[in-house]
Amino acid sequence: MRSNNVRNCLGGFVRKNAFYAQSGGVTAVINASACGVLEAAREHREKIARVYAGKNGILGALTEDMIDTSAESRRTIAGLRHTPGGAFGSARYKLKGLHENKAEYERLIEVFKAHDIGYFFYNGGGDSMDTAYKVSQLSRRLKFPITCIGIPKTVDNDLAITDCCPGFGSVAKYVAVSTREAALDVASMARTSTRVFILEVMGRHAGWIAAAAGLAGSQPKDAPHIILFPEIPFDETAFLARVKDCVSRYEYCVVVVSEGTRHPDGRFLAEAGSRDAFGHAQLGGVAATIAALVRAKLGYKFHYAIADYLQRAARHIASKVDVEQAYAMGRAAVELAVAGENAVMPTIVRKADRPYRWAVGKVSLNRVANREKLLPRNFISRDGFAITAACRRYLAPLISGEDYPPYRDGLPDYVALRGRPVAKRLESEFVLK
Amino acid sequence: MRSNNVRNCLGGFVRKNAFYAQSGGVTAVINASACGVLEAAREHREKIARVYAGKNGILGALTEDMIDTSAESRRTIAGLRHTPGGAFGSARYKLKGLHENKAEYERLIEVFKAHDIGYFFYNGGGDSMDTAYKVSQLSRRLKFPITCIGIPKTVDNDLAITDCCPGFGSVAKYVAVSTREAALDVASMARTSTRVFILEVMGRHAGWIAAAAGLAGSQPKDAPHIILFPEIPFDETAFLARVKDCVSRYEYCVVVVSEGTRHPDGRFLAEAGSRDAFGHAQLGGVAATIAALVRAKLGYKFHYAIADYLQRAARHIASKVDVEQAYAMGRAAVELAVAGENAVMPTIVRKADRPYRWAVGKVSLNRVANREKLLPRNFISRDGFAITAACRRYLAPLISGEDYPPYRDGLPDYVALRGRPVAKRLESEFVLK
Repeated sequence: MRSNNVRNCLGGFVRKNAFYAQSGGVTAVINASACGVLEAAREHREKIARVYAGKNGILGALTEDMIDTSAESRRTIAGLRHTPGGAFGSARYKLKGLHENKAEYERLIEVFKAHDIGYFFYNGGGDSMDTAYKVSQLSRRLKFPITCIGIPKTVDNDLAITDCCPGFGSVAKYVAVSTREAALDVASMARTSTRVFILEVMGRHAGWIAAAAGLAGSQPKDAPHIILFPEIPFDETAFLARVKDCVSRYEYCVVVVSEGTRHPDGRFLAEAGSRDAFGHAQLGGVAATIAALVRAKLGYKFHYAIADYLQRAARHIASKVDVEQAYAMGRAAVELAVAGENAVMPTIVRKADRPYRWAVGKVSLNRVANREKLLPRNFISRDGFAITAACRRYLAPLISGEDYPPYRDGLPDYVALRGRPVAKRLESEFVLK
Repeated sequence: MRSNNVRNCLGGFVRKNAFYAQSGGVTAVINASACGVLEAAREHREKIARVYAGKNGILGALTEDMIDTSAESRRTIAGLRHTPGGAFGSARYKLKGLHENKAEYERLIEVFKAHDIGYFFYNGGGDSMDTAYKVSQLSRRLKFPITCIGIPKTVDNDLAITDCCPGFGSVAKYVAVSTREAALDVASMARTSTRVFILEVMGRHAGWIAAAAGLAGSQPKDAPHIILFPEIPFDETAFLARVKDCVSRYEYCVVVVSEGTRHPDGRFLAEAGSRDAFGHAQLGGVAATIAALVRAKLGYKFHYAIADYLQRAARHIASKVDVEQAYAMGRAAVELAVAGENAVMPTIVRKADRPYRWAVGKVSLNRVANREKLLPRNFISRDGFAITAACRRYLAPLISGEDYPPYRDGLPDYVALRGRPVAKRLESEFVLK
């Protein structure tokens, strides 16, 4: 689908403003994508006048609460590349289907019209690509041209088509590094103290993050000794036997468990009972569940860590490849838009594993919307507790290289925005449900 | 007390072997101290023949299970400086009083005699300084001269006399960096997702580590908004009021809680009921306790992270000052020993806060043995939830500078020892109780 960019009477493109929003859980490098968008947009002033960023993601568009990024200095924009979290605020807020909640989509178009917005850059996961796709459909139907470009982002690495997803490489590196480090600690204390160490990592349905821990070691004696994936139903007997065997062989056992690990009947090992805004079960505490099991059945002394937000915010140990890809995806989104593409998302295309080579590709939004890419079965060992050589080949390049932020007084010098608000133009207020 | 170094007939010192052991919980930089000991010892071959390291700490001496460090390459020894954990193995094993368990002390002396060991370097906390002191006493009583030198180590920073303690600066940096990063994540999601984020950190009795999180921000709006110290009895009402106020002002609230936080009646907020080898209550799960309280009383969506071993193993984000001090303490121990000192521990003496200047001092072991330095009350704000300017002045230099390890394939390239065992010389086996 080509863009509906309006040509003026001289045949040149009309300048339009752009809207950029971050969506869903943030990452260590989502701001690097924002940096790419903003820097590229500034190079295309012939087509993109100003970039307005949604405060708290798409909510900022619905409530006409936007930040004028043209008020930010070049230095601040450049600093986004090394700043974790979502600089403009993100949101867990999924627009429903066009028929179920037409008012929200119409409101978006109304705000875009009022602010002369012709470009919509939406930085998020599968849910967000669905929203961007729906906006592009509505835009055509309403004959109000908006170029809709998705920008991939998710620590879960579960987006379809793209070889990997910005945000994942850095959490993968954090988890692999942390596993290697904690394992050295446990190994040195095992004789008189902790025998079993459990690290709980993110990954609700897809085990990519847990798999990345597997990079910490390469021999059977190396940690992690057991990885529990959401894709593999938890086998209590086999798990306990493996822990016991591991402790007797190596004196200790390091377990990395994905928050999404499930019982054979489909229940999460640690379901808290509540659900988030997307209707997903809110998880937490699987490490404690595993630890209690180990103590009850095997009697070993244990410790557990829950990385939680630390893992996806850890810009201090970001993967260089990940930062470069996040930035490139942001730039590519703008390049695609100004080249007249519409309803697409730039992708990462792998050209070679080692040495790693990649290029920027693209895909229609409807092909990535609402799809989830799980860990392929051949990436998990036959016994279900480890990663295979194929998985290692895939993962290894994604954590390569370091991209340290600048430090001041011993702490990373992360940037904060001025955040100048865009003056409201609509009379009506939009009330979020 | 001067050393009992034996002079030979020519008036020179007799060469003796040295024994080095790591004790208690390991740190990101205890191996940097080992590196300092081994490198300095190699420069004093006129007095120190070989350094034997205890496998699993003091257990290695009791069971005659030692590693001959002379078999390790210069490169490996140098690599210890950037390798976390305890390279030789550590142990949570406290020798009891001389009268209660004389057999253990006598066994130590027996092993030292058998291996011609004249120097005992013990790298640990207050308990270990007590052990080293007792060995020095017994050595005098038995007229078997052993130069006993302690080397300070503890992430808890609770050793007396020394201005700070190697291991602490790096965990402090990890906690401050992680708090700053996670706070950016939470802030960007707060509108539609997590309102309260809780980070659980180590610190059983002393709140130094929790205090270090305070470096992450400098304004009231900055995270952490609340720090819970072991030194301040938990005031549920005041805490909940503060959380509520914080969420209404800033949309979110970041809480850093020390594992050792207690109810006013002295019970730990999260006591697991079991005890470790030192008889200390085994803790864990205070973050979950706080989270449940927040949800029950205020209804906010929360997330929590438990840093556990990750914090004290995080060599990848070690403080440069800490690494330098850890190394310097190891070197100083050897220098003190060869200079004829005995029953002492090198210390860090602060000369100035900013710019930070420090020097190496020394203290008698009996002055640091079994003493615990808590956070002074004037380091904690009047309301008990934050650190003061005085605390900030003390802490800031300790996290300054980065000292990145080398990387290979995206992961820190930590060294492993050859670990050549020292041949046993005793007939008797020592059975650990």
